[in-house]
Amino acid sequence: MLHADRLFSPDPAQREIARALYTQIKDLPLVCPHGHVDPRIFADPAYRFSNPAELLIIPDHYIYRLLYSQGIPLENLGIQRMDGLRDVSRSALISPYPDESFFRRVWQNFAENFYLFRGTPTGIWLADELTNVFNINKKLNADNAQEIYDGIQSRLRSPQFQPRALYEQFNIEVLCTTDAATDKLDSHIAIRESGWSGRILPTFRPDSVVKIDMPGWGENIERLSAISGTTISNYASYLQALENRRAFFKSMGATATDHDAQSALTINLSHQEAESIFQRALRNKPEPGDNQRFTAHMLVEMARMSTEDGLVMQLHSGSYRDHNPLIASRFGRDRGADIPVANEFTRNLKPLLDRFGNHPRLTLILFTLDESTYSSQLAPLAGHYPALRLGPPWWFHDSLNGIHRYFDRVMETAGIYNTVGFNDDTRAFPSIPARHDVWRRAASDWVAGLLVQHIIDEDDAQAMVKALAYDLAKSAYRLE
Amino acid sequence: MLHADRLFSPDPAQREIARALYTQIKDLPLVCPHGHVDPRIFADPAYRFSNPAELLIIPDHYIYRLLYSQGIPLENLGIQRMDGLRDVSRSALISPYPDESFFRRVWQNFAENFYLFRGTPTGIWLADELTNVFNINKKLNADNAQEIYDGIQSRLRSPQFQPRALYEQFNIEVLCTTDAATDKLDSHIAIRESGWSGRILPTFRPDSVVKIDMPGWGENIERLSAISGTTISNYASYLQALENRRAFFKSMGATATDHDAQSALTINLSHQEAESIFQRALRNKPEPGDNQRFTAHMLVEMARMSTEDGLVMQLHSGSYRDHNPLIASRFGRDRGADIPVANEFTRNLKPLLDRFGNHPRLTLILFTLDESTYSSQLAPLAGHYPALRLGPPWWFHDSLNGIHRYFDRVMETAGIYNTVGFNDDTRAFPSIPARHDVWRRAASDWVAGLLVQHIIDEDDAQAMVKALAYDLAKSAYRLE
Amino acid sequence: MLHADRLFSPDPAQREIARALYTQIKDLPLVCPHGHVDPRIFADPAYRFSNPAELLIIPDHYIYRLLYSQGIPLENLGIQRMDGLRDVSRSALISPYPDESFFRRVWQNFAENFYLFRGTPTGIWLADELTNVFNINKKLNADNAQEIYDGIQSRLRSPQFQPRALYEQFNIEVLCTTDAATDKLDSHIAIRESGWSGRILPTFRPDSVVKIDMPGWGENIERLSAISGTTISNYASYLQALENRRAFFKSMGATATDHDAQSALTINLSHQEAESIFQRALRNKPEPGDNQRFTAHMLVEMARMSTEDGLVMQLHSGSYRDHNPLIASRFGRDRGADIPVANEFTRNLKPLLDRFGNHPRLTLILFTLDESTYSSQLAPLAGHYPALRLGPPWWFHDSLNGIHRYFDRVMETAGIYNTVGFNDDTRAFPSIPARHDVWRRAASDWVAGLLVQHIIDEDDAQAMVKALAYDLAKSAYRLE
Repeated sequence: MLHADRLFSPDPAQREIARALYTQIKDLPLVCPHGHVDPRIFADPAYRFSNPAELLIIPDHYIYRLLYSQGIPLENLGIQRMDGLRDVSRSALISPYPDESFFRRVWQNFAENFYLFRGTPTGIWLADELTNVFNINKKLNADNAQEIYDGIQSRLRSPQFQPRALYEQFNIEVLCTTDAATDKLDSHIAIRESGWSGRILPTFRPDSVVKIDMPGWGENIERLSAISGTTISNYASYLQALENRRAFFKSMGATATDHDAQSALTINLSHQEAESIFQRALRNKPEPGDNQRFTAHMLVEMARMSTEDGLVMQLHSGSYRDHNPLIASRFGRDRGADIPVANEFTRNLKPLLDRFGNHPRLTLILFTLDESTYSSQLAPLAGHYPALRLGPPWWFHDSLNGIHRYFDRVMETAGIYNTVGFNDDTRAFPSIPARHDVWRRAASDWVAGLLVQHIIDEDDAQAMVKALAYDLAKSAYRLE
Repeated sequence: MLHADRLFSPDPAQREIARALYTQIKDLPLVCPHGHVDPRIFADPAYRFSNPAELLIIPDHYIYRLLYSQGIPLENLGIQRMDGLRDVSRSALISPYPDESFFRRVWQNFAENFYLFRGTPTGIWLADELTNVFNINKKLNADNAQEIYDGIQSRLRSPQFQPRALYEQFNIEVLCTTDAATDKLDSHIAIRESGWSGRILPTFRPDSVVKIDMPGWGENIERLSAISGTTISNYASYLQALENRRAFFKSMGATATDHDAQSALTINLSHQEAESIFQRALRNKPEPGDNQRFTAHMLVEMARMSTEDGLVMQLHSGSYRDHNPLIASRFGRDRGADIPVANEFTRNLKPLLDRFGNHPRLTLILFTLDESTYSSQLAPLAGHYPALRLGPPWWFHDSLNGIHRYFDRVMETAGIYNTVGFNDDTRAFPSIPARHDVWRRAASDWVAGLLVQHIIDEDDAQAMVKALAYDLAKSAYRLE
Repeated sequence: MLHADRLFSPDPAQREIARALYTQIKDLPLVCPHGHVDPRIFADPAYRFSNPAELLIIPDHYIYRLLYSQGIPLENLGIQRMDGLRDVSRSALISPYPDESFFRRVWQNFAENFYLFRGTPTGIWLADELTNVFNINKKLNADNAQEIYDGIQSRLRSPQFQPRALYEQFNIEVLCTTDAATDKLDSHIAIRESGWSGRILPTFRPDSVVKIDMPGWGENIERLSAISGTTISNYASYLQALENRRAFFKSMGATATDHDAQSALTINLSHQEAESIFQRALRNKPEPGDNQRFTAHMLVEMARMSTEDGLVMQLHSGSYRDHNPLIASRFGRDRGADIPVANEFTRNLKPLLDRFGNHPRLTLILFTLDESTYSSQLAPLAGHYPALRLGPPWWFHDSLNGIHRYFDRVMETAGIYNTVGFNDDTRAFPSIPARHDVWRRAASDWVAGLLVQHIIDEDDAQAMVKALAYDLAKSAYRLE
């Protein structure tokens, strides 16, 4: 079902070179510096995935958003409602759910609409996953849906499909999760204590204690107080608590932090103004603009902390979260209704860069959902500031064409050495090899294109594909 | 003159597949759900086109804008001045104009500058039209201009070049026109009463009664009052009149509405505020912002009406109309001086989507002139909201590269099934087959690229090209 | 080292055509209508370049920005500090610097990091320059750095590497420099008086007397007063002084002016408001917005002067100058820390176009750093207004992919005849042939692509490549 030359240019000369380059890198270990796999699946050595629907469909908003866009209710895809429909997605992490017919119906709905994924990255990943992970050699459709369900299900019961076994089979060298600042990192502690050799590292994500307009911010601050052992009564103790947590994450192996913001705006507030906003937030009496200004200011504070503790800073900006209020109210947050907005970096990042853009200890990795900024702003910024690096194509752009555009628009100005290789950025654990494979094929093909156009020579080409597939991620994220 | 493999990728493998796919779809009937052909040419069974200049140059702002940009006065291209130069363009629709030497001079001017169209879509369409419609097998130039004029002219006199005959020869299945809300649809009535089997359908375009700052808005409202039989004295009766007209259009076969706006801004005004603005407009005493707010509000009202009457809603946003005041004052509106502006959808459409984005009866088809929104905003929106579909590349982007970019930037995230196939969007009737042919070739080539990269299989490929060439337009516009 | 088919498409059919087209144009004389070569190197017939580092690295911010982005201090690359480090860059234009070991260390630093330029345009240009200008047939690396330094150095001592000899060897037909409005044009006078046949023309660049917030503006106005023999006491005498300088530049052969602005904003101020702002500026008491409004207004004034004196107007907008304050304070302005910002043309240029967009004597050439404006704004504007032309891809976009994007996004709507061929825009004199060669190869390949897709025929193709390589630059800049 999967062709050996898939995703390569049709040109025979370029394809032959691409294949040769790909052969050199395809078996390199996978470095996964940014993603959303739940660490609990590795904490319990006996953990098993429940069933195909809970594993492949219900947690994957890439899949259900497209089905929803064609009018298929999320309920029919197994997504849990806030109002009491049973918790199919969460329970999946605890134990197989008893009612198999429910999951079989979800799977059937998916199979009947599988044609919607023609030509999409999800279609590519799923084909790879079914073939290479589950050894299913048929294209999914309405007729064979239950047979394929059975095939996957039977494999999920075998020990070699337990998460730790898959981690090893996938040849993962390191896998970083994303964890709230207030997370106790119990799973990471359990993994470490278990003596298992897999390298699962936390990443410090403070959004829920930084965005003062987020529902539950007050409770999150209380939680942060408790877990850091720091009474947070003012801005100074708030910073101290954050520094405390960063130190704890670092002690648990974290090498990076991660920050989400609708815009890349950064501001240097005076201590006094930061304090005022913080106090208003504690009293739940924000003024207009407080959230935006405080978030923008905290990005600079986080950069400052990175210059001190050496954690690599990631900034993911440009997503309008929970754009569809019906979905948010019925199914909760993060249900595939996040839509990108236009983004600006040159002016917005200046306050941060004025302070730390030349700092030798800072690495700030930028991500964008607005591809028009690649060539005009991000590549020139990364091609100048020592502290800046560009993250790989993100989210909607983590696709074959998205990767092509990234190479074509970024690399000439930034050079590959101001980029950081690949992130799979996924919560769908079994899709990790497929995602890295798309990147490695696309990178091989791009470098082959440079070679066949005589822009680089063979030595360059070999160094470049290895850097893109492996070295850059490892060095940029300080995972050495 | 026309090569059988034109517009296909040069790669032999991809080209061979593209050719095979194209062969399967090239003779499918043409579905034309959006365009600007004047229905009068079909109302009179004996209608004849007057001459090559009036048919091919004078009504086509794609052609004369490029000639004007090189310093050729519009007068020399036959464009009618407001100050009394004879009405060459309009009269063309009534009877052949007697002064042939004038049109021959216009044609000569065009021929002498035909080289300006090298590499442009207009150049591609014209080559196709001259060859396939008029059987002219020479490249137009200064020397053969009059000979070619004669060749076209002689054909225009024959019955097989009458509009109805061409409609059938072109294998058009349905052709939708664009008609003002106040249009009596006389031509459509005449077509229907004539018993002719051609399917010419109106489209409801209310811009001139919605944009309160448009010259003549007051008279248009009076016209709307009269034609709808509704005395429009307030906002409520205004809505009623619009609903009445929509019902009439629907009774005449319309399946869609069409809306132009400089931005995609939508607003939910209170009834009271809408009433206040409307009253100020009636008294011709608008306040600053009234027009923008009212237009934005009316988009939501129109979406609401669509959920009720089932008319598909089209939104064409992003054109700064009549940008060149000299041209507008000398030649009137819509004379090729409309220039795109940057556009925003994620925030602007939210008020409309909050109300109707999940509505099962709404289909809202979005068009853009700002390609940077394809991958970042439009594809993610269409890939989530059940009510949204993306229109094909519009206007300046309805070109070979424009279509390539559309496929590459939209399809991975939206999937092809959230798009609507092709619109020719033309007032140049004889260019319709050429325009569909460019789309069908480009679609075949794009799908061939997916196949040769092993992203899809042959079954997928065949279903996809047929969907892009025929099925999607028919289903999205509810033309079944 | 350099392959004959470099930069062409890998497709054999397209490549063969590209090669044939390229063969027809590769030896056409170089027309260089916009650049930053220092005219002093031609004023002294005995001028010699000092050494490889001073010639190739120190003046080239394309090179040192990328090295700096990887943490290499600018000091180690020979860039002069404001605080007294010796003036390596400027003195280079006067005499070879005695301390050779310093420059050898700079060169070694560069060579050790040469791998950073893999896949970048700088890498392509350097490979071409080293091979074709200096006859170095090895790839630069740490080991051979000093040997290659020796090889270049020995050539620089020979008469055939003096600037005038290189000008002739490069087959340059005309080379325009960029000169401040207050420049006495001594070098241009000296060139003219020397009787040398090389055609070195000045370009009028008034930024330093127009941008009222620029450090030193007051002194620049005094300088303008003195050199124009016009006492500048008010706005009217200021305009008179500018007109006087334009006339002088024109008498020295200038055919164009050049203007930098962060945005393309244009405004028609009343004479009174312009006077008020100008008076405040003279008293050094600007109000907020004065600079922006005055700069925007002066663009219209400059267009007006162009309609009178016939100088072609160039507008380079979209760069945030001196974005990195550390670099600016330590090394001065223009040190590779200029970062693009998003740009808008449709609305911003309207005031200027309303007055002069249809003027038969104005040619306004637009450049952008924001590629998202190519297809959506610039091509439609240039495809309508007789006064507008589009400049070639600028700065970060003057790269192989940048040129591909330019062709693909601009040409279908603007047509090639609203573009102006190529600008090398460089201060690196020996890179001029390499830069034109990249353009000529890319243009040949693009036209070959049109031919192999049967969009144009062979006659068109030959005319188009010649126009792109030679004719358009000459005619648009009125260099005939």
